[in-house]
Amino acid sequence: MSFINVSPDSHFPIQNLPYGVFSTPDNSQKRIGIAIGDQILDLSAVKHLFDGPELLNQQEVLDKDCLNDFMGLGRPAWQEVRETLQRLLSIDEPILRDNTKLRAKAFVPQSQATMHLPSKIGDYTDFYSSKNHAYNVGCMFRGKENALMPNWTYLPVGYHGRASSVVVSGTPIRRPNGQTCPDESQPPVFTTCKLFDFELEMAFFTGPATKLGEPIPIDKTEDYIFGMVLMNDWSARDIQKWEYVPLGPFLGKNLGTTISPWVVTMDALQPFKVPNAEQNPKPFPYLFHEDPFSFDIRLEVALKYDGLQQPQTICRSNFKYMYWTMKQQLAHHTITGCNINPGDLMASGTISGETEDSYGSMLELSWKGTKPLDLGNGITRKFLQDGDEVIMTGYCERDGYRVGFGTCTGKVIPAPPL
Amino acid sequence: MSFINVSPDSHFPIQNLPYGVFSTPDNSQKRIGIAIGDQILDLSAVKHLFDGPELLNQQEVLDKDCLNDFMGLGRPAWQEVRETLQRLLSIDEPILRDNTKLRAKAFVPQSQATMHLPSKIGDYTDFYSSKNHAYNVGCMFRGKENALMPNWTYLPVGYHGRASSVVVSGTPIRRPNGQTCPDESQPPVFTTCKLFDFELEMAFFTGPATKLGEPIPIDKTEDYIFGMVLMNDWSARDIQKWEYVPLGPFLGKNLGTTISPWVVTMDALQPFKVPNAEQNPKPFPYLFHEDPFSFDIRLEVALKYDGLQQPQTICRSNFKYMYWTMKQQLAHHTITGCNINPGDLMASGTISGETEDSYGSMLELSWKGTKPLDLGNGITRKFLQDGDEVIMTGYCERDGYRVGFGTCTGKVIPAPPL
Repeated sequence: MSFINVSPDSHFPIQNLPYGVFSTPDNSQKRIGIAIGDQILDLSAVKHLFDGPELLNQQEVLDKDCLNDFMGLGRPAWQEVRETLQRLLSIDEPILRDNTKLRAKAFVPQSQATMHLPSKIGDYTDFYSSKNHAYNVGCMFRGKENALMPNWTYLPVGYHGRASSVVVSGTPIRRPNGQTCPDESQPPVFTTCKLFDFELEMAFFTGPATKLGEPIPIDKTEDYIFGMVLMNDWSARDIQKWEYVPLGPFLGKNLGTTISPWVVTMDALQPFKVPNAEQNPKPFPYLFHEDPFSFDIRLEVALKYDGLQQPQTICRSNFKYMYWTMKQQLAHHTITGCNINPGDLMASGTISGETEDSYGSMLELSWKGTKPLDLGNGITRKFLQDGDEVIMTGYCERDGYRVGFGTCTGKVIPAPPL
Repeated sequence: MSFINVSPDSHFPIQNLPYGVFSTPDNSQKRIGIAIGDQILDLSAVKHLFDGPELLNQQEVLDKDCLNDFMGLGRPAWQEVRETLQRLLSIDEPILRDNTKLRAKAFVPQSQATMHLPSKIGDYTDFYSSKNHAYNVGCMFRGKENALMPNWTYLPVGYHGRASSVVVSGTPIRRPNGQTCPDESQPPVFTTCKLFDFELEMAFFTGPATKLGEPIPIDKTEDYIFGMVLMNDWSARDIQKWEYVPLGPFLGKNLGTTISPWVVTMDALQPFKVPNAEQNPKPFPYLFHEDPFSFDIRLEVALKYDGLQQPQTICRSNFKYMYWTMKQQLAHHTITGCNINPGDLMASGTISGETEDSYGSMLELSWKGTKPLDLGNGITRKFLQDGDEVIMTGYCERDGYRVGFGTCTGKVIPAPPL
């Protein structure tokens, strides 16, 4: 229990303590905070209280404009800071509780804060690790028999995304113009994207830097996974379809990628581990691990639109539907020697379950536009329209508390004139 | 003419003045320098002499550990610094020439310097803009009839690469282990890469930052192209072939990408412009420009190996063989709204000409291993072997002077034990 009041349905009880970067109207300096209830504890204001052996001589990592340096310290430091935070915020601990002056300085209501990207993302990678999603998309584009490519069950397929266009929740996303080829017997056209889509994903931030040429062994990967966020991998399907052969998605994706602002640590997610997906064929040794590293995180996507009385839930999925684990993704990513840096972002790929209401994209929900979604009030959707706001949420729940991710939102604004 | 002696075959006469980042044995601080003859002028030591209207109040950009801030200033500042440098180094200008103390402090022999990456690369993009290369690779993998994908002549195909593993010339590159599928009727194997290759490329660094959602019009692209380097896009062909469907190259490329340390500015390359490649079909308006933006840059690749008396030239190509220009690449990259930052890196793709000796990769030179290269001394190569050092060079030449890029080198070291 914390001396800060936390409502039972809050995503941010003392069991969570996610990290974010914020500023306030009276102080535009970006600084690191943790969410507790509807408050933010400003770590720059209390960094002197982190006096354990790991942090004592590097308290300045808590007084930066991004989390990269803290992420770079590694697990012993992450765990020490978490323990210190849980003690400082405990109802039984007077240091912060009874220091009115420090409390006034150190706590900021979340409603007054502007959130920023948690890290300076050096590199962003997007995997494709939900078997249901890969199968669904494969069915639509290549038919049931060739839905999954031969490599899919042997390795976590992924590609490099664009880091510069990763933005924080709330940033408007502009519908793009670009080349599409609606009729393959005709030349392409330059036009406004018509098949604009979201993708429900989650992503993790990496920890300490590794060296070029030195893979991370699978049994060490946990030391390099700091924590997770929700992600919306906005996708221009018509542009992507024309451009993506043979080198993969490019402009159909780099127009913007939205993440939620609060990074939930793996320590906070620990109680929500569930058995991994069964994998057949058995992965190569560099990808094989037996310990559970799947997580029961309930995910929802809602659509908000002026014509609707309230946001309409269009997808209910779960992170536990992933086929490949984050450990396997990271071991694979580095096996040929690729180095990672603190604050790199690695995403899951669209998270779809087996049932039709669990599909994580409009492409799948409307089955390529053949089954429009009924949102009520006479409003239907095949793909996203201008003015649509996509709201993703996610949380774990047990024993009467939630460890949540807050929301990841973005509103579609009209394309530039052609 | 400069008061610094420059030999006629030097890549670095006063007409060039490329930027780099270096350190010295007695001063490990990374700092910005320009190459002149066999010397480096340390800009941190002479920044006070840049007193034109653009630089006067921001001389500190010349006193950083990377070029990003200077790249971010834009063309008027780039041109002013170039003019100031040409004046300061001129044989007729006494300020630096006659100041023995300042000269001793400001000049460092290149032979004593360690070169570093010129910028902190936020994002790295690799295009695929040599028609000959795309055709050659297409022939090998899909046959002559389907060699070029339908989109290739309509847009500069490209993909996002890994920024963290871009390294400076001279860094050893480790042969990777990874999954390959040598027999498609059998499951894949985990093994040491057997088809290790180089790719002869050039790349440009970007200038000022743009905003998400705001494309760069084709007629403004020149304001965002700072300068160029040589690049070796190391490639594990067997790993790439198995992994790359449907999302593009990943581990086959992110094991390391080498660039030359000296960034040659577009102003220095100006005299070497040649007509653009003929483009058919005519590009969409957002990609169309008539002004020449191709460059006559002679490129060579040599292989050095202990068993050879001297490095053996295996490829003679030219940057002018590119089909898509850098302007078109940049306009395309941003058309759906992707933002760029100062110091981003955008590469050409492998530069192959029409003749067999101009192919920019072992894959093409040995035609998929079917025509081993004879290096003399009884030594042949289909792909790269451990101990091979790949040496790329490039320069423009006219009126008895060269504007060159120096070299881009890397030696293949053995893979980790399996």
